[in-house]
Amino acid sequence: MLTSFIEVSKESDFPIQNLPYGAYRTESGDIHLCSAIGEYIIDLFVLDEVEFFGGPNLKGKGVFLDSSLNYFMSLGRPAWKEARETLQKLLEKSNPRLKDDEQLRQKVLKEQDSVEMVMPVQIGDFTDFYSSEQHARNVGAMFRDPENALLPNWKHLPVGYHGRASSVVISGTKVHRPKGQILPEGADAPVFEESKLVDFELEVGFLTGPGNELGQPIDVDKAEEHIFGLVLVNDWSARDIQKWEYQPLGPFLAKNWATSISPWIVTLDALEPFRTEAPAQNPKPLSYLDQKNRTTFDIELEVFIKTEKLSTPYEICRTNYKHLYWTMAQQLAHHTITGCNIKPGDLYGSGTISGSEEGSYGSMLELSWKGTKKLKLPSGEVRSFLEDGDEIIMKAFSKNDELRIGFGEVRGKMIY
Amino acid sequence: MLTSFIEVSKESDFPIQNLPYGAYRTESGDIHLCSAIGEYIIDLFVLDEVEFFGGPNLKGKGVFLDSSLNYFMSLGRPAWKEARETLQKLLEKSNPRLKDDEQLRQKVLKEQDSVEMVMPVQIGDFTDFYSSEQHARNVGAMFRDPENALLPNWKHLPVGYHGRASSVVISGTKVHRPKGQILPEGADAPVFEESKLVDFELEVGFLTGPGNELGQPIDVDKAEEHIFGLVLVNDWSARDIQKWEYQPLGPFLAKNWATSISPWIVTLDALEPFRTEAPAQNPKPLSYLDQKNRTTFDIELEVFIKTEKLSTPYEICRTNYKHLYWTMAQQLAHHTITGCNIKPGDLYGSGTISGSEEGSYGSMLELSWKGTKKLKLPSGEVRSFLEDGDEIIMKAFSKNDELRIGFGEVRGKMIY
Repeated sequence: MLTSFIEVSKESDFPIQNLPYGAYRTESGDIHLCSAIGEYIIDLFVLDEVEFFGGPNLKGKGVFLDSSLNYFMSLGRPAWKEARETLQKLLEKSNPRLKDDEQLRQKVLKEQDSVEMVMPVQIGDFTDFYSSEQHARNVGAMFRDPENALLPNWKHLPVGYHGRASSVVISGTKVHRPKGQILPEGADAPVFEESKLVDFELEVGFLTGPGNELGQPIDVDKAEEHIFGLVLVNDWSARDIQKWEYQPLGPFLAKNWATSISPWIVTLDALEPFRTEAPAQNPKPLSYLDQKNRTTFDIELEVFIKTEKLSTPYEICRTNYKHLYWTMAQQLAHHTITGCNIKPGDLYGSGTISGSEEGSYGSMLELSWKGTKKLKLPSGEVRSFLEDGDEIIMKAFSKNDELRIGFGEVRGKMIY
Repeated sequence: MLTSFIEVSKESDFPIQNLPYGAYRTESGDIHLCSAIGEYIIDLFVLDEVEFFGGPNLKGKGVFLDSSLNYFMSLGRPAWKEARETLQKLLEKSNPRLKDDEQLRQKVLKEQDSVEMVMPVQIGDFTDFYSSEQHARNVGAMFRDPENALLPNWKHLPVGYHGRASSVVISGTKVHRPKGQILPEGADAPVFEESKLVDFELEVGFLTGPGNELGQPIDVDKAEEHIFGLVLVNDWSARDIQKWEYQPLGPFLAKNWATSISPWIVTLDALEPFRTEAPAQNPKPLSYLDQKNRTTFDIELEVFIKTEKLSTPYEICRTNYKHLYWTMAQQLAHHTITGCNIKPGDLYGSGTISGSEEGSYGSMLELSWKGTKKLKLPSGEVRSFLEDGDEIIMKAFSKNDELRIGFGEVRGKMIY
């Protein structure tokens, strides 16, 4: 198996087979694109400046001299594969080029702990799907009817809606508890106050590369060619604001005050060894959603809470991406079927990912079953929704006996 | 009254008091920002290149050397006022600078009919409100209950949702009839086919200038300082797709296949003479929406249809912007109250604007009352919704005895 001259521990998210993409702030305050290996980031700006990317798809383009990945993302899979292979060759155990050039090594490799990661992409549009059957069933059972938890359209199309792109923030950004209109139980007029029911939502999002022309849908069997990679997403929500506002046009302010993403974008190429069959679909979807070789990825997901009294983060959810009913390719084919155009850098959230057992639910709403149950934490504290000072940490990784490909984490602390 | 050396007819939308902003494609294919006077566009790139904008807010900034207005929009009202006054001085009857410099005049002034207008702004996010009471009542009466046409939240907050920014297109762009999932009457499974119920929506949108920080709401009484100007908006909709998809998260594909805007952005400064009181509100809104001096603008709106058999466009709707229940300032204060950040270049649609009489309804859905009535056209044709080849033309202007400030038009043709 491919190994690097840089030592990478078995538990690291970032072996030479991963090479995710991100951006960091240099000592002089500039934004440089980067990748990661083991404990280090790899400064791609520096490598591009010395004309390291000399293959046919990247030579002379200076894709890593930009402060965002959008241009690189727009180039498509041949360029992505070339960058990946070029980097793997550079980092490979037997290659002296970087290994033996101490000056270059010091400019290219920096300890991850020593740098501040920033948004690596200009997100044009953010769409959020609702593709976890268990989550949709839980919400339907709580708010409508346990016997008819899924709405009639749910198994026919990947339900989704447009979210707010401006408030997508990088992991580590503190988020303010929102204020807004809330209808008190039994009242007929709303009050203006801070949200009492602040929640996280565990999601995985994909980012698109090459787009399509307006009016030209993307074929479901070619959709993955438009997908650059995946991030972890925490789609913060204010349930009490949502309840009062969301009819008839859907969630608006309840969701637009912050959405946190992980700093690393993990590519489909890195996740390829973890490709697995997607859940069977019944009824069979309409032709434009009927994907051949319908596969997804086996990605373990974990959510931890860290309160001020907890000494270490405490796990409150563990589930897997592979349970989603609708695949990314189906989501993208559906999104464009009316002719909607997508662009490089657009973000598409999966919707909250919940498994079938209680400990696998991806939101406080479900974990506390609408606030009727209290989560007991080892500190003696209890939680139904989030309190000021609580931090939510999500992690994701794919793993087999030989390999671990991880996302790092997305974390965000709720403040007043 | 201020007059220009360029002759401007009484019926022109573009007197020296207007000076809207747009962008056009030059003969060499570049994008230049521009303004308009009478029959001409004013090339702002050329003027900026000769360092014409020398005031304290614009000098040396090169704001009109960009291919989009976003940077200029970000600078705020002092810069906007300075640009306006500088241009008015240049165009004023007694000023020889441009009037007597034929070479410069030929580079700066071009006939509007001879140039192709393009998108003048990079729209980051697009939000669509639902702020016309009559429209909300019409839709509520048609689809729910005529006795309780407005939902309980409607008079407490400006209902809105996030739209798709990537598919906002400039006037003149042809739009494809969308295909999608539709549930036939009485069926329990959807079919995949082209939308039969394609509609326009008459809207006016505003574009924001300076933004706010995430977590810092915009005060309703300061909100207009964040508003750069207004455009005409046609928010194309597919009613049959909407009906099947929109529960529980709101309209998605039914709206994201195209939204057309007028090429000219009319500034609030130009509309100032047409400021007028906004409709009274009962109940009184919560404090954060309780705007002092609640004013709006008196803007006449017209919609025309042009079919292949009609020799001239035929008017099907006439209404006014001033009837909207929620003002722009209230919309923006509401949008940010949870802490959502706005950015220069974001677009905010009013929602369909309908007056109280039948001929003032701003969509085919309402004009044909859900398809139950046929609109008779002078060509002998009838319409309930739009057919392939139909073109929708929207116009807007403010007018008094002395002055007419217009938006030009937004037009779009429906093709297969």
